[in-house]
Amino acid sequence: MLENLKNQVLYANQALEKYGLVTFTWGNVSGFDPESRLMAIKPSGVPYQDLQTEDIVLVDLSGQAVEGSLKPSSDTPTHIELYKTFSEIRGIVHTHSDWGTAWAQAGQSIPCAGTTQADYFYGEIPCTRQLTKNEVEEAYEKNTGTVIIEAFKDRNPLEVPGVIVRGHAPFAWGTSPENAVHNAVVLEKTAKMTYLSRQLLSDPATENLEEYILNKHYERKHGKNAYYGQ
Amino acid sequence: MLENLKNQVLYANQALEKYGLVTFTWGNVSGFDPESRLMAIKPSGVPYQDLQTEDIVLVDLSGQAVEGSLKPSSDTPTHIELYKTFSEIRGIVHTHSDWGTAWAQAGQSIPCAGTTQADYFYGEIPCTRQLTKNEVEEAYEKNTGTVIIEAFKDRNPLEVPGVIVRGHAPFAWGTSPENAVHNAVVLEKTAKMTYLSRQLLSDPATENLEEYILNKHYERKHGKNAYYGQ
Amino acid sequence: MLENLKNQVLYANQALEKYGLVTFTWGNVSGFDPESRLMAIKPSGVPYQDLQTEDIVLVDLSGQAVEGSLKPSSDTPTHIELYKTFSEIRGIVHTHSDWGTAWAQAGQSIPCAGTTQADYFYGEIPCTRQLTKNEVEEAYEKNTGTVIIEAFKDRNPLEVPGVIVRGHAPFAWGTSPENAVHNAVVLEKTAKMTYLSRQLLSDPATENLEEYILNKHYERKHGKNAYYGQ
Amino acid sequence: MLENLKNQVLYANQALEKYGLVTFTWGNVSGFDPESRLMAIKPSGVPYQDLQTEDIVLVDLSGQAVEGSLKPSSDTPTHIELYKTFSEIRGIVHTHSDWGTAWAQAGQSIPCAGTTQADYFYGEIPCTRQLTKNEVEEAYEKNTGTVIIEAFKDRNPLEVPGVIVRGHAPFAWGTSPENAVHNAVVLEKTAKMTYLSRQLLSDPATENLEEYILNKHYERKHGKNAYYGQ
Repeated sequence: MLENLKNQVLYANQALEKYGLVTFTWGNVSGFDPESRLMAIKPSGVPYQDLQTEDIVLVDLSGQAVEGSLKPSSDTPTHIELYKTFSEIRGIVHTHSDWGTAWAQAGQSIPCAGTTQADYFYGEIPCTRQLTKNEVEEAYEKNTGTVIIEAFKDRNPLEVPGVIVRGHAPFAWGTSPENAVHNAVVLEKTAKMTYLSRQLLSDPATENLEEYILNKHYERKHGKNAYYGQ
Repeated sequence: MLENLKNQVLYANQALEKYGLVTFTWGNVSGFDPESRLMAIKPSGVPYQDLQTEDIVLVDLSGQAVEGSLKPSSDTPTHIELYKTFSEIRGIVHTHSDWGTAWAQAGQSIPCAGTTQADYFYGEIPCTRQLTKNEVEEAYEKNTGTVIIEAFKDRNPLEVPGVIVRGHAPFAWGTSPENAVHNAVVLEKTAKMTYLSRQLLSDPATENLEEYILNKHYERKHGKNAYYGQ
Repeated sequence: MLENLKNQVLYANQALEKYGLVTFTWGNVSGFDPESRLMAIKPSGVPYQDLQTEDIVLVDLSGQAVEGSLKPSSDTPTHIELYKTFSEIRGIVHTHSDWGTAWAQAGQSIPCAGTTQADYFYGEIPCTRQLTKNEVEEAYEKNTGTVIIEAFKDRNPLEVPGVIVRGHAPFAWGTSPENAVHNAVVLEKTAKMTYLSRQLLSDPATENLEEYILNKHYERKHGKNAYYGQ
Repeated sequence: MLENLKNQVLYANQALEKYGLVTFTWGNVSGFDPESRLMAIKPSGVPYQDLQTEDIVLVDLSGQAVEGSLKPSSDTPTHIELYKTFSEIRGIVHTHSDWGTAWAQAGQSIPCAGTTQADYFYGEIPCTRQLTKNEVEEAYEKNTGTVIIEAFKDRNPLEVPGVIVRGHAPFAWGTSPENAVHNAVVLEKTAKMTYLSRQLLSDPATENLEEYILNKHYERKHGKNAYYGQ
C-alpha cells in the first residue's frame, strides 16, 4: 500500500543524516496521504542507514498501525495531531538539530532577522509554551501537538512551516516529506545565523587594526612592490 | 557565445559548494565580458550539481537575456548595477554564507581586526544602509545594487572587494568569477574570526589551571619520569 | 583471552574518531568482564587507525597487566576506580571532546536544559570538585576516580552515565564499551546545545526584519507573482 | 641536498590542510638542519596539493636562497629569527587558523585553562606586543620574529612551543616539522576550548528542565514501561 509515499518517507528520513540534522536516531519524518487518510512514518529507534521501504509504518489518524511489522516512531501522536489540524500539510519532520534545539532550550522564538528566513517563513518561528505537568503525564506526545497548534492559532502553517517546542526541539512541515526536510534545514540555518547576529549585537566595538599594519599587509600582496607569491 | 566566460562562471558557481558557502541554491556567481558588455550568470533555482555550461544565461546590461533557455538569477538586476558602476570588476558572487549573513543581520560592518582581512581588503567590509520601503517595493534587486554603490562612494571596489547588505547577506567581487569566489571565502573567514575575537573582548578573565595540575600533566608527558605513550 | 571483549574495546576506540570526539590519541575506551574481573583497555599513545585486537591490554583491578605487550592507557587507574565502585558498568570512555572540555574548564555542571539530555541522563551532568595538591601529587589518575565517585554519592551511575572532571575533560560509561561511547556522544551534543542556549539567554532581543522586506522576500518566492526559480 | 628534510617539510605542509588549519595558501612550515645551518621552507603562494619535494626552497640564515627555483614564503625572515634564537627547535609552523587567529585579533594570551593545554604547553600561550610603526615599515617579517622572541625572554620555547602574534595569527614550533604541526593543532584546539569555557563563565545560570518532563523523557526510554525503540 502507498508504495510511493513510503519511498518518499524513506528518502526524506535518509536526507536528515545527509543534511547533518540528526545524531543516532534522533529524528523522524512522516508523510500523509489525504485520500486514504493514512500516514507513513519512520519506525522507532531504527538507524537511517538500515531503513528499507517495507520498514516504513502506515498508521491511521486514530493511531492504529495499518501496515508494517515495526513499531512507529514514539512521536507518532504528535504527527497525528498536526495532520488532523493543519489540513494542507503533507509531510512532517522532527529533529534535535543543534541550533534549533538551542533556541528550544532557551524558550525563545526565532525572530525573522534576515531575508534567509523571510524567503521561507513569513515572520518569526514561534516557540510553544511549556507543557503543563498534567499534559505531560496524561498524553505527552499528543499534547506536544496541542501546544504546537495553540502557537498557530493566528498563523498559517504553510506560511510558517515550522516551530520550536519549548525545552525540547524543532518540528517542521511542508507540502511533501521532502519539502518538510527542506524547511527543517532552513530552520536550522536561520537558528544558527540569528544566534550569531544576536551575539554581535551584544558585543562591544572591535578596534580596527593599526593603519600601518593594514597598509603593510595589503601592499605586500597588492602594492607596487608586492612580494607575496611567485 | 562567450564559451570561455560561461565555463568560468560554471566552475565558480560549483566552487560555492566546495567552499561551504551555500545551502540549497542560495548563491550565484556571474562574470562580465567588457567587449561585448554581456554578463554570464547562473540560472535561478537550479542546483549546482545539475548545472551545465549551456545553462549559464547571457544577459545584457539592460537586463535582456541574449542567450540561454533558462531564467537568470533573480538577483540579476543587482549584478547589473554593480557592473555598470564598478567598471573594473569582472566577477560577482552573492551568497547567504553563515558568518557573513550574521553580520548582515546585525547591521554591522566587519572591522579590519587582523591581517587576514588586511591581506585582501583595504580596511573594513562595509555594511550598507537599510533599503527604504519605496526602494524595496519599486525595484528591490536593482536598489540592492544602489545601496551597495552608495557604500562605496569613498572606496575603491577593487581594494575593498565585498560588502554586507544590511538584513540580507554578503556580495563579493573581483577581477574574474574565480577571484570573486576567492574574495567571498575571505569575507566569510574574516566574518568568523572577527566575530570570535569580539566575543573574547567582552569576556571576563579566565583563571589559569592550578599550578600543581599544570606540573603533573606537563611532566607526565614530558618530564624525566614521563609515563604517557609506549 | 577475552577475545570478544577486546574486539568490542577495539571497535569502541575506533568509534571515537568516527564521532569526532578525539584529536590525535586524546581518548580511550575500556570494557570490563565481571566474571574474570579483568578490564580490557586501549594501549597508551597508539593512534586509533593502527590499533589491532592484540594491542588491547588486559589489566586486573589491582592494576597489573595480565596480557598484552603494550603499556595500558595512562588513565588506567581512573578506569579501575570506577569499575571497583560502579559495579554495574561494563564500559568507560574518556575524551577531551571540545564542548564537554569547555564545561570542564569552566568548572560547571551541565544543567539538564532539554529533552535531548533527559533522554539519557536523569538530570544534570555533574562537574567534580577540583583535586587537591596532595591528591594530584600522590596518585593523580587514581584520585581522578575518587573525585568522580564523590560526585556520585547521591546519584546512580547508570542513570547519569557521565561526568565532567573539573579543569580536565569528560568521562562517560555504560552497559558496554559501545554504550559508553554512545553516552559520550550524547554528553558532547548536550554540552554544545546547552552552551548555545545559555548564550541566547544572555543576549539582548533581536529586532525583526522590517515588514516590507519580509513581504518582498516571502512573496518573491511564494506570492502570486513569484519570480524565483524556473 | 637535504632530501630527507625537504620531504619532511613537504608532508608537514600538506598536513596543514588535513588538520583544517589553512584556507588557500595561508600557512607555511619550515624545517631546520643544524649541521648545514640551512632551512627548508614552503615556496610562497603555491597550493599545498601542487607541492613537490623539489619545490621546497633551501635558505641559509642570512636569508639567501641556496637551492630551489621558487621564491620562499614571504614569512621566511620570521622563521630565520626564530631558528637563530631558539637554538633547539627544528620545525616552525605559521597559520591563520580560525580560533588561534581570533585570540590574536583580541590581543590576548590563551590562559592555560585545562589539562589539554597543560599536556603540551607549560602554561599560557603568550600573545606578543603590537609591532611599532617603525618595526613594520623597516622590516616587518623580521620584526615579527623580534616580538616573538621578546615574549619568550622568561620562557623556554620547547616548553611553550607556540605563540600568538597580536593582530595577526599563531606560530608554533617543535623538535621537527611534524612535531611543529602537532603543536599547531594543539594550539588551535585549546584556543577553541578556552574560548568556549570563557563564554560559559560570563553566562547567566540556565534553569533545569521541569522535573516532570525530565521524568517523562527518561522513563519513556529507560523506565519499566519504556516505549521508545523496537
